[in-house]
Amino acid sequence: MPLIFWLVPLSSLLALGFAYYFFKQMMGEDEGTDMMKTIAAHVRKGAGAYLRQQYKVVAIVFAIITIIFAIMAYVLGIQNPWVPFAFLTGGAFSGLAGFFGMKAATFASARVANACRTSLDGGLRLAFRSGAVMGLVVVGLVLLDISAWFIVLNIFVTEPDMGMKLLTITATMLTFGMGASTQALFARVGGGIYTKAADVGADLVGKVEAGIPEDDPRNPATIADNVGDNVGDVAGMGADLFESFAGSILATALLGAAAFVGTDLQMNAVIAPMLIAGVGTMLSIMGVFLVRTREGATQKELLKSLGIGVNTSAGLIVVFSLVILYALGLPNYWGIWGSIVVGLLAGIAIGQSTEYFTASAYKPTRKIAESASTGPATLIITGIGTGLISAAVPLGIIVVGITLAFGFSSGFAYDSASLNMGLYGIGIAAVGLLSTLGITLATDAYGPIADNAGGNAEMCQLGEEVRNRTDALDALGNTTAATGKGFAIGSAALTALALLAAYFEEVKIMIVKFLDMPDMLINGIPAADAQFIDFIHHYDIHLMNPTVIVGILVGVLAVFLFSGMTMNAVGRAAQKMVDEVRRQFKEMPGIMEGKTEPDYARCVEISTKGAQKEMMVPSLIALLIPVVVALIFGVAGVTGLLVGTISSGFAMAIFMANAGGAWDNAKKYIEEGHYGGKGSENHKAAVVGDTVGDPFKDTSGPSLNILIKLMVMASVVTVGVAVSYSLF
Amino acid sequence: MPLIFWLVPLSSLLALGFAYYFFKQMMGEDEGTDMMKTIAAHVRKGAGAYLRQQYKVVAIVFAIITIIFAIMAYVLGIQNPWVPFAFLTGGAFSGLAGFFGMKAATFASARVANACRTSLDGGLRLAFRSGAVMGLVVVGLVLLDISAWFIVLNIFVTEPDMGMKLLTITATMLTFGMGASTQALFARVGGGIYTKAADVGADLVGKVEAGIPEDDPRNPATIADNVGDNVGDVAGMGADLFESFAGSILATALLGAAAFVGTDLQMNAVIAPMLIAGVGTMLSIMGVFLVRTREGATQKELLKSLGIGVNTSAGLIVVFSLVILYALGLPNYWGIWGSIVVGLLAGIAIGQSTEYFTASAYKPTRKIAESASTGPATLIITGIGTGLISAAVPLGIIVVGITLAFGFSSGFAYDSASLNMGLYGIGIAAVGLLSTLGITLATDAYGPIADNAGGNAEMCQLGEEVRNRTDALDALGNTTAATGKGFAIGSAALTALALLAAYFEEVKIMIVKFLDMPDMLINGIPAADAQFIDFIHHYDIHLMNPTVIVGILVGVLAVFLFSGMTMNAVGRAAQKMVDEVRRQFKEMPGIMEGKTEPDYARCVEISTKGAQKEMMVPSLIALLIPVVVALIFGVAGVTGLLVGTISSGFAMAIFMANAGGAWDNAKKYIEEGHYGGKGSENHKAAVVGDTVGDPFKDTSGPSLNILIKLMVMASVVTVGVAVSYSLF
Repeated sequence: MPLIFWLVPLSSLLALGFAYYFFKQMMGEDEGTDMMKTIAAHVRKGAGAYLRQQYKVVAIVFAIITIIFAIMAYVLGIQNPWVPFAFLTGGAFSGLAGFFGMKAATFASARVANACRTSLDGGLRLAFRSGAVMGLVVVGLVLLDISAWFIVLNIFVTEPDMGMKLLTITATMLTFGMGASTQALFARVGGGIYTKAADVGADLVGKVEAGIPEDDPRNPATIADNVGDNVGDVAGMGADLFESFAGSILATALLGAAAFVGTDLQMNAVIAPMLIAGVGTMLSIMGVFLVRTREGATQKELLKSLGIGVNTSAGLIVVFSLVILYALGLPNYWGIWGSIVVGLLAGIAIGQSTEYFTASAYKPTRKIAESASTGPATLIITGIGTGLISAAVPLGIIVVGITLAFGFSSGFAYDSASLNMGLYGIGIAAVGLLSTLGITLATDAYGPIADNAGGNAEMCQLGEEVRNRTDALDALGNTTAATGKGFAIGSAALTALALLAAYFEEVKIMIVKFLDMPDMLINGIPAADAQFIDFIHHYDIHLMNPTVIVGILVGVLAVFLFSGMTMNAVGRAAQKMVDEVRRQFKEMPGIMEGKTEPDYARCVEISTKGAQKEMMVPSLIALLIPVVVALIFGVAGVTGLLVGTISSGFAMAIFMANAGGAWDNAKKYIEEGHYGGKGSENHKAAVVGDTVGDPFKDTSGPSLNILIKLMVMASVVTVGVAVSYSLF
Repeated sequence: MPLIFWLVPLSSLLALGFAYYFFKQMMGEDEGTDMMKTIAAHVRKGAGAYLRQQYKVVAIVFAIITIIFAIMAYVLGIQNPWVPFAFLTGGAFSGLAGFFGMKAATFASARVANACRTSLDGGLRLAFRSGAVMGLVVVGLVLLDISAWFIVLNIFVTEPDMGMKLLTITATMLTFGMGASTQALFARVGGGIYTKAADVGADLVGKVEAGIPEDDPRNPATIADNVGDNVGDVAGMGADLFESFAGSILATALLGAAAFVGTDLQMNAVIAPMLIAGVGTMLSIMGVFLVRTREGATQKELLKSLGIGVNTSAGLIVVFSLVILYALGLPNYWGIWGSIVVGLLAGIAIGQSTEYFTASAYKPTRKIAESASTGPATLIITGIGTGLISAAVPLGIIVVGITLAFGFSSGFAYDSASLNMGLYGIGIAAVGLLSTLGITLATDAYGPIADNAGGNAEMCQLGEEVRNRTDALDALGNTTAATGKGFAIGSAALTALALLAAYFEEVKIMIVKFLDMPDMLINGIPAADAQFIDFIHHYDIHLMNPTVIVGILVGVLAVFLFSGMTMNAVGRAAQKMVDEVRRQFKEMPGIMEGKTEPDYARCVEISTKGAQKEMMVPSLIALLIPVVVALIFGVAGVTGLLVGTISSGFAMAIFMANAGGAWDNAKKYIEEGHYGGKGSENHKAAVVGDTVGDPFKDTSGPSLNILIKLMVMASVVTVGVAVSYSLF
């Protein structure tokens, strides 16, 4: 292994070290008054209880899947024998990242509220650095897992042919993404249902029926609501991006091994994405230290503070990645670097478009607010119309992005070799976009921490000045959450496309190496000698093959079915919460008088159980569809399936995230005093829109991110089924 | 030409003859009281004014496009020289069909209301036979246009090689579908915006603000609302299915010419779809005569009456199509017949699933009604969730359908010859589904006629008994409208897939015949000798080609953009109507007292202008995207585009149609006295859902039907651009 590779494990250890440092630093701060401590403890306990319950269920699922993989590998011989282990570590590390991130977030909220009693700058820095714990743990654990496996496999994979060896190693490592995907699926779907069931329940009965604020301690669902922010936005988002980060690096490594097979540069092409991610991580740590602000800063200044950290890291990675590519001696390094820049620009552009379509400073959200004047129906129509249109923009950005990312790396040529280089370019664009994830994820995780700090301040009735500070931090959190979602979706789309390209490489490795059929004729050529393009022709993955069309239709089907089921799951889980809150108000009249403490734990339990119950069916569908399609329609059908899911799932995810975000902000815009302000008929209409938007933006939309990556991953690890057993 | 072909023009003349007969018969009935005549005249005048205005705009668009085609054909030499003419006749015939159908519908409404003063049976028969005018005119004109062109081209196309001659003829004829598509686009989008702008305006101000019924003569928008039913549901639906009927027959003829090229059976394979459609039309005429009922019939009995007509025709075509295929001596005629049966069964199954998801007799709609108890937000969430899930079912049906339709005709084999046969099978499945369109379209057009009759009865305050009868007919119309929408969408999807397959045949004909490059190397073989599969490999339309992926993403982009724009168009147009109705109530206080007649004409004008203005941008986008993609990404990009649009557009269309239908019926279910009944809070929530559903089910959803077919058609006629000028 080249010496430079060791930067990757080093960056991983640095990330984990600084995460620990920020965590310790945060734990050293004071948690404030007794009441603040109590409230925080409630939330922490609820979040912990949820995570334990979730991990129990997930552990069972992992056990079953591991056994299936083991049978496939050791009994049927249609599976890479490393997969069961890779699968487990991927899942375990992702789970660990979620655990630490949420731990940090739940310990931080009261401390941030307390810091805001002194100064805004202190509050911002504490909240942001607590978010950075999450960001750095995620990237640190991904890089640790990747480094460890890469070292281990380089020792244990015995393959005389070096080209084949690296292909085998990278193809094996890619399957570790399956563990991360599975973990992420349950985190996003379960967390998404949890948070919205609690939110809708707290809103509908507490706010609308009883007329008390959302964060009022008399609202029995308020703790569950705060837990939900951590469960959905911290743990869910973390698992989602853990998977994108890992998936993009691993897919690109495999695509690099394929593009440079038989050359001296193969190893360098394989470690290039790891190095870029490693250096990006170090730059992220540096960026975290740049975030600070002055007392009484405006919203704009606060945003600028965060921007300095994020943009400095991103700007430097552009420079450093060129250095890395040059140092590795890759041919056409200017072109490959161009692809990285394209990836970064695409991410920024998608973030900007998200802001344009969801922030009340711009026309679309204001139009939605305006349409409240003719009632909730027209507000919903305008929101859906605008949301649908808004999906076209990131789609357009990705279209331009992959055209250029492919074109720069391939030199805009199109033959078998250029095809491989171009696909490598798409992969490395995804790595570029995600390279500074350490800090971008910190800005995401910051949101719910600030939100919870605000909740804590509200419940503990801290002074107005403190509340103004937490409100300022919270408002900033809403903006970062919206752009964070755009970033998550954009990176998921690019990662999924890179994974899709890697799928066909997996087919080849499976046939040649693990099914041990190097003489199988592929397009008339023995598999061992067959080119990428031969596999494409052999499997007829073209658009006049009805199997491919059928696969694409099933992919679209999966997206609509999955979105619909997660929407309805929230509806059902929320209904139970509504019933429980109503029951408590009725049976314990002391609650409203402030004499009796409501049974917070019962609401937490209901959300937990509801989420666990409701997440199973959609999750199983997501896991089973690729296998069923593989069994019936084979490789061509699966390829179609993935394309159908990625394309329509991406669009649907943006539509839902943006429509939801715009309704939320249209409501806030009215609450700021426009179009009649709080309590007006227009405001009521806007609350309806906001409630409809809740499962859009926090459950179904983000879950689709996982769906599109998981389907590819599930196809990658079951490629032996598609190759060996398909009906058509 | 074989003698049996003459059955096609014969069936066309029979259809037109009976349409004239039913029309005359209807015109001979009495229109009732003076007031009934006046109201009907208002609606007729409004509808006529709209259609004139619409046709003016469309004429300009047609003139421009014809000139472009002429330049392409005669200056640039990249167009089939027949296209400008074929394009014009397609558009003109479709326009004629819309004109006659709407004429019949608007003359019928008062007569149906009057017939209901005597008996239910009389009303049903009159309404249904007036609807049959539309159905028979549509199929008659399609078959007339097809017959005429087939005869003319057989005389004028001079081609020594018979195989090439029939390929050229069928490829030329297919482009006549472009005229029909363009006409349909404006009819569906314009009509859809018109009808919902009027409806939402009439509801929001009339019903909600002024508290008078929808059909109250004091409501200034009521005439516009009734006009809208004719404009959207009659003319729009007619143009939509005109295009599907023509497209499925023509695409299948071309696929037949390709599959049987060089054999004696080529001519027979080409005329097979025409014959099946012709015989289906004769059976439809017979079916119309079977529809009758008894006085005091229940809803179920009424539905059964219609069912007898529809099902007898469908049952007989199953038998006759086997006879036709056998008589034509086609090989594997059992298999091809199997594909036809699959098409018919798929149509029925999609209709059933539509009914299940939208009728209040079943769980999904009742669940939506139930969720009204927690307010409009949860009702909307449940409706969207259920709508999304409901899209999965027809997708699944189409997946099974095309697998079997392809499999039966190809013998479940997969080589170059079987591929051609299989695609022919998919085409003929679409023809099977649409063969008895004459009568199924009659049941669709019946709906708005019954609705208008009810409106007329309400406005003229006819007795309760009469109103009960028109209500019974109207309720039946709602059911046939929902299943009719399912049928339209299902047939659009199958037709679009057949057209997609035909697209690649067009590429070949264009290169060999019109670009006159028979020696161009296709996959290493001179184009004239190249097989279908060679073109596939030459153009690399596989899923690892980024051009294809980009095309697919643009296809999805088009669907989301188009849906969003049509949603917002309704919002804007409705807003203008709301303002006008408010103005009239304010400035003319005599209206509410019943002393002053409201200015109906002004509302009609606003809807007309609004629709004309708002339809332009989405329509141009639909027309331009295929050309832009052809210019940049060439044949591979266009193929991707079409697949992306068809797959996601189909799903989106069903989602929108079903969610809208379910909200509508959930509202009606509550109005029947469930969950609090009319005027309750639950009812108010349901009204919000219904209003949101209006543009879903009557504007955006149906417009997507056209979009998916039009994009293919536009690609077919601009294939010369993709082949000659593409950037990549």
